Amino acid sequence: MSIQAIFYHAGCPVCVIAENKITDMVDRERFDLEIVHLGDNKSRLDEAEAAGVKSVPALVVDGVPLHINHGADLSALR
Amino acid sequence: MSIQAIFYHAGCPVCVIAENKITDMVDRERFDLEIVHLGDNKSRLDEAEAAGVKSVPALVVDGVPLHINHGADLSALR
Repeated sequence: MSIQAIFYHAGCPVCVIAENKITDMVDRERFDLEIVHLGDNKSRLDEAEAAGVKSVPALVVDGVPLHINHGADLSALR
Repeated sequence: MSIQAIFYHAGCPVCVIAENKITDMVDRERFDLEIVHLGDNKSRLDEAEAAGVKSVPALVVDGVPLHINHGADLSALR
């Protein structure tokens, strides 16, 4: 069964660099990677926050939030 | 040819969580992942800094630094 990984971003330059690297690196044979633009999908903000995401870009892997560099605080996207 | 990825850490709890996830996620068929403990290998500090690493844990992929959460500033390891 694939492990769930969600990459949250907001289309910012810092986000794009991280997205390119993460999508390239993740082993797609084992991980089901979803990319979520929180600016375009504000309905997913609560879910991201509940997972522990404080800023974007961030990757939530199997429930663990990994903040990757810093583009924008989640609060700035509300 | 494998793409070079170096994970720099300092053995801190934040580092260990990130290390576990990153080593699990990276596609080893395509990426050559090296793990470097900067506390034990201070001779690698200059190299990490030159790659743009400001804090650990950090992953440098193909020359691009990705800071993953925040454990310690690089300056604290010197």
